[in-house]
Amino acid sequence: MTFLSERSKHAQNAIEVEDIVAEELVKEGRKVVSLNRGDPAKYLPTPKYIVDSYKKALDDGKTGYSKAEGLNELAVAIAGRYKRMHGLNLKREDIICTAGVSEALEFMNSAMVSSGDSAILFKPYYPPYMSHLRLNDGNVVLERYNESDGWNVHIDELRHSLSYLKKSNRLKKVKYMLMTNPNNPTGTVLRRKVLEEIVDLANEYGLFLISDEIYDEIVYNGARFTSVSELAEGMPHAILNGLAKDYDATGFRLGYMIVPEDDKRSLELKKKMVDYARVRISLNTPSQWAAVEAINNVKEHNRWVKSYVKEIEKRMNYAVDLLEENPYLQVVRPNGAYYIFPKIDLKLLGFKSDMQFVDTLLRKTGVQIVWGSAFGEPSHLRLVGLAPKEILEYALNRLNNFCRKNARN
Amino acid sequence: MTFLSERSKHAQNAIEVEDIVAEELVKEGRKVVSLNRGDPAKYLPTPKYIVDSYKKALDDGKTGYSKAEGLNELAVAIAGRYKRMHGLNLKREDIICTAGVSEALEFMNSAMVSSGDSAILFKPYYPPYMSHLRLNDGNVVLERYNESDGWNVHIDELRHSLSYLKKSNRLKKVKYMLMTNPNNPTGTVLRRKVLEEIVDLANEYGLFLISDEIYDEIVYNGARFTSVSELAEGMPHAILNGLAKDYDATGFRLGYMIVPEDDKRSLELKKKMVDYARVRISLNTPSQWAAVEAINNVKEHNRWVKSYVKEIEKRMNYAVDLLEENPYLQVVRPNGAYYIFPKIDLKLLGFKSDMQFVDTLLRKTGVQIVWGSAFGEPSHLRLVGLAPKEILEYALNRLNNFCRKNARN
Repeated sequence: MTFLSERSKHAQNAIEVEDIVAEELVKEGRKVVSLNRGDPAKYLPTPKYIVDSYKKALDDGKTGYSKAEGLNELAVAIAGRYKRMHGLNLKREDIICTAGVSEALEFMNSAMVSSGDSAILFKPYYPPYMSHLRLNDGNVVLERYNESDGWNVHIDELRHSLSYLKKSNRLKKVKYMLMTNPNNPTGTVLRRKVLEEIVDLANEYGLFLISDEIYDEIVYNGARFTSVSELAEGMPHAILNGLAKDYDATGFRLGYMIVPEDDKRSLELKKKMVDYARVRISLNTPSQWAAVEAINNVKEHNRWVKSYVKEIEKRMNYAVDLLEENPYLQVVRPNGAYYIFPKIDLKLLGFKSDMQFVDTLLRKTGVQIVWGSAFGEPSHLRLVGLAPKEILEYALNRLNNFCRKNARN
Repeated sequence: MTFLSERSKHAQNAIEVEDIVAEELVKEGRKVVSLNRGDPAKYLPTPKYIVDSYKKALDDGKTGYSKAEGLNELAVAIAGRYKRMHGLNLKREDIICTAGVSEALEFMNSAMVSSGDSAILFKPYYPPYMSHLRLNDGNVVLERYNESDGWNVHIDELRHSLSYLKKSNRLKKVKYMLMTNPNNPTGTVLRRKVLEEIVDLANEYGLFLISDEIYDEIVYNGARFTSVSELAEGMPHAILNGLAKDYDATGFRLGYMIVPEDDKRSLELKKKMVDYARVRISLNTPSQWAAVEAINNVKEHNRWVKSYVKEIEKRMNYAVDLLEENPYLQVVRPNGAYYIFPKIDLKLLGFKSDMQFVDTLLRKTGVQIVWGSAFGEPSHLRLVGLAPKEILEYALNRLNNFCRKNARN
């Protein structure tokens, strides 16, 4: 008998796997630059008005438990945000607050996925999507974002797949289709036209559509973001979001799921999410009060987020420019979030895998990034472009030189 | 095909089920007194030195992600606490920080329990123990705390059960034995002698022993607490604990698991818990820094905790005194935690179930408590004795009068 459960092997997240190596190097006195975690608060301070309201909540004694599915006041704030930005009329019951999008993924997979069920993910995918699906004995149907079309969704391919799933009688086992927009790890913002077609297909095939829109305000280089919530009226869908990225508050661990419709599946899901929330009693309370102010103070937020996104745009473009000097990489320039996901010519560089490349890079140069195969896309790398120019310059030059040195030509 | 998974029915926690009724009553202008949640911060403010260090962390910009398994500084603080209080020498790898004990339960059950496996729980049990076990397809072997012996463990009964499990070849399916000390919902502090015998039995039968000691400093009426960690040296075990109760910081959502030994099972478990932590990226960061100070500032803590526990002792004894005036209840006086778990004579009062009693009580009197069957013990009630004297007096007199009015004699 093995002690650990079979499912537990799916509990893994490659994004932090090399942190141990990085810690060791630092202990040896080496300089390490970590571009592995998408943590804006590491370099760009969380807005003062949010921090102040967090402190006020603490002063006001908001240190006890709060309602399991989130403060009513926070639900009102979130409803206000979706009214302002997307014209939605959300009710309290449509909103479930969670410890980051992570917990929403945990709850919804446990609630929806039985052994033998499946879900449609698009690769490259954010690794915890796969973990939570697999931890609940789900199978994956892997669609893809199309690298040659800027990582957009190839609609004909998707239509073909869905039609095939239906014909082969496997569609009824599909519990949801989950997409990320703006995307992690590619930084792509899906075109409105493409989104409309995805929504139409989901509707045609009766799929429960889930859109992870945690980076919805971090959009630049002229791109425009469209929320699935604007397009999916009348069909079952859910939106995942949170405070981490748009409000630069990663360390608050505050996410939410909205389920705007009242069809049978939507009703069952949102009711059950509350049950899951009750099992873990409460979220961190003072951070929820900070979130209420973060969202409701639209004036402060809008002023701040403009400069925040401008700064990210500048850093990202600078990083991409540097990576484009590297002949062994092929980069799609992102226009959302803060990830860069270049393709790498491993053969030419003499590496067997992107994992081996990343590990060697870290040990030789002190630059920490993530391997693409963690996202279901081998021969790729994920870099976070949030660091200030000098740090990006230092790290990416080391990466570029490392490639040049290893090149077999 | 049902939309929700079969397992999802186990996601439930009766402690908060009546909150909706309570909310409705309040909306109607009725006065509600809720004695259902064990939330000290509702009535007794979180110590100022902890709140101040939380605010300082925010001022210092500690708002980004932190190490998935918890800050190294927090692990050092926790190790220091266990060194001081129980003479343990814990390593960083022995400590995994979690979003409350709730998340530790989630991780450990997902990591340890496969379909067909089981775990030994004692009834009455804290409801999430059962939820997490069942959510992972585990079966329960229910032992019991003995009401007629002040809810202590009846060692001969336990020995008999274990021997039977072994003979019937079911012992090898038992992944862990989990106990709570001091207990929720009974408020019992297990006697050292009893604990020693439990540990011996666990050792004899090769069980992985888990002790939830979240109330370890909330002990009174002359009782003394013994940690399993003092007795279980050399055998696989884990301790669950956190900031919520001893530091009056329920709304921080900060728990931890310690796994002191390095046998094969312990090593596998603690390593896998880190993997689970990585899937959800990070805990709330500023609250962890508050926790570092909360634990390390022993002088402030000791001064405060003394008066905190004295106050709880006073309130609890006052509540028990009032309940003892009720001839339809039978109360075991607690000496730890802040729950009272009286037996109720439902037949004499004309109720079919404790659930019906609790629901009717709330609707008629505005007093909210929890039914015992949620803890696996029908014909019991759980009340929280944390409110100030006036509130307890108001609520418990209403409860007593409600019983008198309904009595069939």
